[in-house]
Amino acid sequence: MPADSAERETSRTPRTARGVQTRSRIVQSAARLFYVKGVSATTLDDVRTASGTSKSQLYNHFQDKAELIHAVIDVQAKIVLAREEDSLGRVRTLGGLRRWRNAVVQTCSLQGGAYGCTLGSMSIELSDSDEKSREALAAAFDTWQRLLAGALIRLRELGVLSADAKPDDLATGLLAALQGGYLLAQNGHNSRPMAVALDMALAHVESFARR
Amino acid sequence: MPADSAERETSRTPRTARGVQTRSRIVQSAARLFYVKGVSATTLDDVRTASGTSKSQLYNHFQDKAELIHAVIDVQAKIVLAREEDSLGRVRTLGGLRRWRNAVVQTCSLQGGAYGCTLGSMSIELSDSDEKSREALAAAFDTWQRLLAGALIRLRELGVLSADAKPDDLATGLLAALQGGYLLAQNGHNSRPMAVALDMALAHVESFARR
Repeated sequence: MPADSAERETSRTPRTARGVQTRSRIVQSAARLFYVKGVSATTLDDVRTASGTSKSQLYNHFQDKAELIHAVIDVQAKIVLAREEDSLGRVRTLGGLRRWRNAVVQTCSLQGGAYGCTLGSMSIELSDSDEKSREALAAAFDTWQRLLAGALIRLRELGVLSADAKPDDLATGLLAALQGGYLLAQNGHNSRPMAVALDMALAHVESFARR
Repeated sequence: MPADSAERETSRTPRTARGVQTRSRIVQSAARLFYVKGVSATTLDDVRTASGTSKSQLYNHFQDKAELIHAVIDVQAKIVLAREEDSLGRVRTLGGLRRWRNAVVQTCSLQGGAYGCTLGSMSIELSDSDEKSREALAAAFDTWQRLLAGALIRLRELGVLSADAKPDDLATGLLAALQGGYLLAQNGHNSRPMAVALDMALAHVESFARR
């Protein structure tokens, strides 16, 4: 994970264990609300109610909603990228890549397709209105794409994929298939479009398999 | 286009030419704001200001924001699907499919990747909170997928694609690549990820070309 996705120290970085706990409770509540309701549709009052914090506690930790949004992006990017790093870091065969696909489809299926990808949804809401959020999410997508490319480079080095496979483009295509799959699954409340989209992208990757 | 995406008659359907114009101005202004700022981030006051209408004029045409949202989805779906129907209806060769790809990438590129797909963005914001919007957008995505499948069925019938090509799944994969491409392009403010994603999907379609 890149150093710049680590949580930034600010003047409001809590100095006590209780402060750390309160801040974490606020971020977790906001993350859940942003994911289910959307960022713009969530008010700071919603976050206060969900986290059981007072107005003064909230403003003690976050100057405004923008600062809370950036903290949520940091936390969500860490969760998604840690999961992907773990899953993709172990890929050494085409079967391993299939297992990565099965895991993301299963997770999507468990919630009936709903909610989509936390990073993708925040990106669509924020990319044109909050440059700091866009940049933080772009860094996360960039890391995600590099994790996918890393797995494909490994497959090429191990001789599973042929030398003319282009890991960078294949990784971009896989990430787009995943994000488009999330979007159609969320809209249809059904994970099938994600499975179909990833299968199509994987079939293309597999067309570079060395015979 | 399915009959149910036609604008519904309501008790507030305007009866005068001026009423029709005012209603259309409100919907156009809302559509633009929803596209650029997002649905939740846009207030009815924003729409009033952008359309130069009074509160009583706005409420004369739309009972609440939900009704305005549904009118915008109707209009945007018609625009997108008319464009796609025109473009995909003419596809009779793999080159024709490439021209469809070139047109959507060029449009995305002209706005520097920004803003994404109007239907995809509204779907991510609304699918988990407004069932009526989700259903209207699902109908639009369904029509879009069938337009893509129709072009692929035609290519199979013309002998361009082989009999084992599955138009339905290929169409879902193409639509997911397009939507995922829009998302990454919007996030990166750069149309390249969309081009790469569509090229990967088209390469897979072309793997079914009859030799």
